[in-house]
Amino acid sequence: MSDQNPVFIPGPTNIPDRLRRAMQVQTQDHRSPAFVNTLAPVLEGCKTVFGTTVGQIITFPASGTGGWEAAITNTLSPGDKVLVARYGMFSHRWIDMCQRHGLSVEIIECAWGSGAPADRFEEALKADNGHAIKAVLVTHNETATGVRSDIAAVRRAIQEADHPALLMVDCVSSLASMPFEMDKWGVDIAVSGSQKGFMLNTGMAILAVSPKALATMERAQLPRTFFDFRDMMSANGKGGFPYTPPLQLIYGMAESLDMLFEEGLDNVYARHTRLAEGVRRAVSGWGLRLVAQSPDLYSDTVSAVYVPEGFDSNALTEHAFANYGVSFGVGLGEMNGRAFRIGHLGSLTATMVLSGLATLEMAMADLKYPVRLGSGVIAAQEYYRATAKSTLTERAA
Amino acid sequence: MSDQNPVFIPGPTNIPDRLRRAMQVQTQDHRSPAFVNTLAPVLEGCKTVFGTTVGQIITFPASGTGGWEAAITNTLSPGDKVLVARYGMFSHRWIDMCQRHGLSVEIIECAWGSGAPADRFEEALKADNGHAIKAVLVTHNETATGVRSDIAAVRRAIQEADHPALLMVDCVSSLASMPFEMDKWGVDIAVSGSQKGFMLNTGMAILAVSPKALATMERAQLPRTFFDFRDMMSANGKGGFPYTPPLQLIYGMAESLDMLFEEGLDNVYARHTRLAEGVRRAVSGWGLRLVAQSPDLYSDTVSAVYVPEGFDSNALTEHAFANYGVSFGVGLGEMNGRAFRIGHLGSLTATMVLSGLATLEMAMADLKYPVRLGSGVIAAQEYYRATAKSTLTERAA
Amino acid sequence: MSDQNPVFIPGPTNIPDRLRRAMQVQTQDHRSPAFVNTLAPVLEGCKTVFGTTVGQIITFPASGTGGWEAAITNTLSPGDKVLVARYGMFSHRWIDMCQRHGLSVEIIECAWGSGAPADRFEEALKADNGHAIKAVLVTHNETATGVRSDIAAVRRAIQEADHPALLMVDCVSSLASMPFEMDKWGVDIAVSGSQKGFMLNTGMAILAVSPKALATMERAQLPRTFFDFRDMMSANGKGGFPYTPPLQLIYGMAESLDMLFEEGLDNVYARHTRLAEGVRRAVSGWGLRLVAQSPDLYSDTVSAVYVPEGFDSNALTEHAFANYGVSFGVGLGEMNGRAFRIGHLGSLTATMVLSGLATLEMAMADLKYPVRLGSGVIAAQEYYRATAKSTLTERAA
Amino acid sequence: MSDQNPVFIPGPTNIPDRLRRAMQVQTQDHRSPAFVNTLAPVLEGCKTVFGTTVGQIITFPASGTGGWEAAITNTLSPGDKVLVARYGMFSHRWIDMCQRHGLSVEIIECAWGSGAPADRFEEALKADNGHAIKAVLVTHNETATGVRSDIAAVRRAIQEADHPALLMVDCVSSLASMPFEMDKWGVDIAVSGSQKGFMLNTGMAILAVSPKALATMERAQLPRTFFDFRDMMSANGKGGFPYTPPLQLIYGMAESLDMLFEEGLDNVYARHTRLAEGVRRAVSGWGLRLVAQSPDLYSDTVSAVYVPEGFDSNALTEHAFANYGVSFGVGLGEMNGRAFRIGHLGSLTATMVLSGLATLEMAMADLKYPVRLGSGVIAAQEYYRATAKSTLTERAA
Repeated sequence: MSDQNPVFIPGPTNIPDRLRRAMQVQTQDHRSPAFVNTLAPVLEGCKTVFGTTVGQIITFPASGTGGWEAAITNTLSPGDKVLVARYGMFSHRWIDMCQRHGLSVEIIECAWGSGAPADRFEEALKADNGHAIKAVLVTHNETATGVRSDIAAVRRAIQEADHPALLMVDCVSSLASMPFEMDKWGVDIAVSGSQKGFMLNTGMAILAVSPKALATMERAQLPRTFFDFRDMMSANGKGGFPYTPPLQLIYGMAESLDMLFEEGLDNVYARHTRLAEGVRRAVSGWGLRLVAQSPDLYSDTVSAVYVPEGFDSNALTEHAFANYGVSFGVGLGEMNGRAFRIGHLGSLTATMVLSGLATLEMAMADLKYPVRLGSGVIAAQEYYRATAKSTLTERAA
Repeated sequence: MSDQNPVFIPGPTNIPDRLRRAMQVQTQDHRSPAFVNTLAPVLEGCKTVFGTTVGQIITFPASGTGGWEAAITNTLSPGDKVLVARYGMFSHRWIDMCQRHGLSVEIIECAWGSGAPADRFEEALKADNGHAIKAVLVTHNETATGVRSDIAAVRRAIQEADHPALLMVDCVSSLASMPFEMDKWGVDIAVSGSQKGFMLNTGMAILAVSPKALATMERAQLPRTFFDFRDMMSANGKGGFPYTPPLQLIYGMAESLDMLFEEGLDNVYARHTRLAEGVRRAVSGWGLRLVAQSPDLYSDTVSAVYVPEGFDSNALTEHAFANYGVSFGVGLGEMNGRAFRIGHLGSLTATMVLSGLATLEMAMADLKYPVRLGSGVIAAQEYYRATAKSTLTERAA
Repeated sequence: MSDQNPVFIPGPTNIPDRLRRAMQVQTQDHRSPAFVNTLAPVLEGCKTVFGTTVGQIITFPASGTGGWEAAITNTLSPGDKVLVARYGMFSHRWIDMCQRHGLSVEIIECAWGSGAPADRFEEALKADNGHAIKAVLVTHNETATGVRSDIAAVRRAIQEADHPALLMVDCVSSLASMPFEMDKWGVDIAVSGSQKGFMLNTGMAILAVSPKALATMERAQLPRTFFDFRDMMSANGKGGFPYTPPLQLIYGMAESLDMLFEEGLDNVYARHTRLAEGVRRAVSGWGLRLVAQSPDLYSDTVSAVYVPEGFDSNALTEHAFANYGVSFGVGLGEMNGRAFRIGHLGSLTATMVLSGLATLEMAMADLKYPVRLGSGVIAAQEYYRATAKSTLTERAA
Repeated sequence: MSDQNPVFIPGPTNIPDRLRRAMQVQTQDHRSPAFVNTLAPVLEGCKTVFGTTVGQIITFPASGTGGWEAAITNTLSPGDKVLVARYGMFSHRWIDMCQRHGLSVEIIECAWGSGAPADRFEEALKADNGHAIKAVLVTHNETATGVRSDIAAVRRAIQEADHPALLMVDCVSSLASMPFEMDKWGVDIAVSGSQKGFMLNTGMAILAVSPKALATMERAQLPRTFFDFRDMMSANGKGGFPYTPPLQLIYGMAESLDMLFEEGLDNVYARHTRLAEGVRRAVSGWGLRLVAQSPDLYSDTVSAVYVPEGFDSNALTEHAFANYGVSFGVGLGEMNGRAFRIGHLGSLTATMVLSGLATLEMAMADLKYPVRLGSGVIAAQEYYRATAKSTLTERAA
């Protein structure tokens, strides 16, 4: 009977009915002319969301992790050097993937809760006189810590070092929820997926690739077939797919893009900021602390929250699920046991967020956290009231 | 983007995914043998929910109002006298229907917020020496006031008066959410619908009819064809319908019964009581007053709440919808402007209820109600915590 | 595994995916402003399909039979006389309903397979000097015999007799599949439903009512509440419903109208004619005979086909269902055992029709009908080839 | 209006309603205990379908092509030699993938239309004294030619050569439609997907891996992360996934397995054989020839059919789609223009197959093929009649 509760994990998100319906298409022949007309506008629409006019959109029937693998295997060769900062679980995983693919990874270790260290990138790149570093890999929104990094600053660092390295960005849990400006920020490959800001089923990796990155394809020696950009681009160009396409997700993407554009991307971002800020006010109200080290790093899609000393965050998320049927994100990696996460992205309303906060309060009270019932809810209510769209005054005017 | 918020109207209810899927059946031939196997278990299962072994289940593709019309036209003749107490919008409407069908209605006027007046029924029936009164009509759960009446007491009153009148009960908004005991209470016709406790789309009236009521069918002179019990019973007996059946709702009913029986009817009722009590604690926390006059009358499916003197309840429900995208029940009839209603029936969780309470608080605060933010939410949280199923202690044991 | 076969019953029809999705809406508050915006365009769109600009659209959550009951109870009084011709099961049922509602029915008995006898209507009306006849009731498409009647001719007959009787037409199985011209034909009440040409779930009766018919409402003495035009019109006028509306069907109607208008009503009718003609060619190919007596009476939504002397049509439909999992219409009333029916309305293609014809051939061969395998299929194939939309020549041009 | 026609491509298949509903699950937390209970029975059930008790089931959110890549990257190292026979498009693609991953491929060229050449495999393996060949790769059902190969014979060949090579089999378009006996046939890795015999959306690669193949994992030097068996097995072992799982497909798989087991795998295979044989009779009836060279090679999931000399098979499939809205498989690779394909796998009935055959006949006639209308349909009808399950005689008994 709890299947009507929203989830508060940082993706996959609650799927709106409109998108669930859109994904219910019966099988169609993916070699028929109808398929072309479905796929082409999706690729075009994605460009707008990535903030690119020159980039190439490439999708795979895979998860975001598959998207990362596509990014590196299509541009790099065994032994190539990449520069990565580790400040969370997802940057950690990307590092691991690079190492397993035989790349040489120069790692900048950072505290979890900090963001991409533009200054240290600059330093490392300046030191790389021989331009051994082929790519800088950055996680835009570190889902494990609730930290959003400044990608434009990383690009500036690369420019300051006058370095030719590609800039690859994981925007799985930020795209379509927070502003992303591929062209403006000089991103070479951006990797995302269907199950976060696009609010769909898991199953489609979505990449945007700059001309500069595309130019490396033929040289790149890492083996790949399923994830080969060339096969996909060539097939897409003829209106097809190199293998069976995920038809239902393509229809879902078409509808998701319609929803995003109808609302307006700026409104989508503003909605995420508003809901996120309400959550942050609640965290303050509880007297708890975010993992993200400073306000400029706060993510608008997920908040990671330290539990008080002596408490186990896993007990909290387990209890919330067992007693109240509500899922929150567990602490990942270094944060396991120390922090829980509240996902607040995708199809969500202030009312839904309040239900999550009220539930967390009950769970914390059950576990004897030094948190007063209502303290977070009230803080969020006040913020949501003040920022509700059609206020009484406006209506009176 | 607000389409994921629950509704808090007293029906139709939030439809669980499982039932939405069950209603997605493609057209089948309703004259094929497969149809019989679908319909028969539904009719049988309904008996359990109505609490009857001797009653006959009769359904129509209509709303609950159609069910009422079926109840009177199949048992009564023009000029027949019926006894009804008016204590809310739905008892009022039943009176109106009887009058428009040429029945003579003896009305007992009661305060809105009170329940079925067993003593006054007894008085009226004792005075009816000639047994002119053919039926007593009672609304089990008056959706307009949030009042549940004592049907067993009404039957006792009829017995005390040694009166042969039929007892007809509107249980549209109580069945499958609160206990109903047709046989034990001596109910002759009980009328319900698919869109409340059964959590389905609107479109099926569901009646349970006692042998005594069935015995009046042939004598009843009120004209009817669509709603004729005889046509429906005869066709159902052969595994069919007298006209095109609402196939999708029949499949929905089969699944709904499965869900109810899997959870256990007693657990379903207990869940409704728990969620309702949390709402009532919140109302107390706000310093507001229920329309229902005393705790024995409190409905577990809907609470009608007086707004403070000088406030307009319609402004509140409109504001909650306009600013926060959440629907609550408006005040109906006498209560229009004076009370709003919180539906808490069907597929609902404590978390969902809290989201409604938190939203109402914001809306009341916006409209300058003398209500403190959090006051209702906290009261409900405390109650839900104390009554959560798998408590920590239990798990430790 | 047979759930993917189309049904070939004359309604409910195969439901297109697009409409199944449209009916999957979650509960919404029917008292909210959003509901108005959903209902109003549906009522408006229906006018176009009925061919009326002056008529009023009135819907009920019921089947077509409920629609008939609404038609007579809102316009007639006990003892009123109506004129009806009986030439099939559905005209027979309408007669029965009138009689059960205390109307005096003047019946013109006609052979099953014939259509509405305009000349005999004219005769009867001319004989009715005192204008005792209040209404002429006609079944546009007699689903039992596959006969479409000439409604314009009936109106001319009424005019010839200079008679004020209302003209009420059952177009349940014709509307949105064959041309219907309410205003042009002078129809006063037209009754249809959601599950035929509109290709939706069963559950909505849809009526169009002329100003002249509406003018009789206040005088009409037949009792009704659920089906009262006045309650429905008054509530609709304020954007609501007098009781809980069938929300999912209203959304379904909106989408169905979109589909019909996108295809164009004339194209919808032409498609039905083409598919029906293919079926008729197949019947000829088999050497069998239609129940409909002459080509001008052939229905484009259903064909009733006589089985050869000595065969039982029920054995055929049962065998087709048991052995091949395909549903055809049984013979109804007088035609039971003597004729089977092929429904060819709603969402259907030539390919689907051929699958039905091929299956019937197998079933007939199994039962030793004097019918050659392929004889019907080939006749239909030839016709469908000749009339396929984008022929090779056209494409070459 | 053609969206109700079945597709006759060799996968993705027509998706049964039951499975479409099963895949409509709302987002759930994949890190919750509920997820484990969903995934584990799916992995277990797959074993039965693969015919293995000792094999390990490993799935990826990808297409079948991704499954192949997983098979080779988890067991082989750059420079390793593999032995493959090329006799169709899909064996060709596997060769290409191996080459792009730096493997040394010993190719046995065979005529398209022939099957896996056990004798030539044996020869090659016997010649490989040094056991340089690490794996033999075989396509069980070559979708491009409609050829099913004898996998047991290949294993016998390996045994005859007393060779340690792994046996990897592509059973994407055969599994769950035709018998597959992993353990009995000595298959080391079998690769399939969700969109063929499982009748689901595209998006899940499903592999079964023998203990011998698993033992090579740690040695295998081909880089992989997304497709790494170790990550997946380790995460699955703890009830999770190494990244976001395709939740909807996992639920779909659970229901698909239920459907398959309810029908009984042997009945599923027999149904495919019956439908396929009807198609083959039709091809004979038309006077056309299958690409598959001999009856022992005939696939029960797809038939590839040569068009007569001088005709272009692409014109035929295009015409069938444009004029009649029905999709058939185009000729692939060498067969492009020379053969078309009829998919007959998954959720299909004799009635549906007949609709495809009747449509093909119309299209062929339009294009002036020397094919008589009805000639194929009749041949298939006769076969389907003779093999219908509940025959008249049986019912009489």
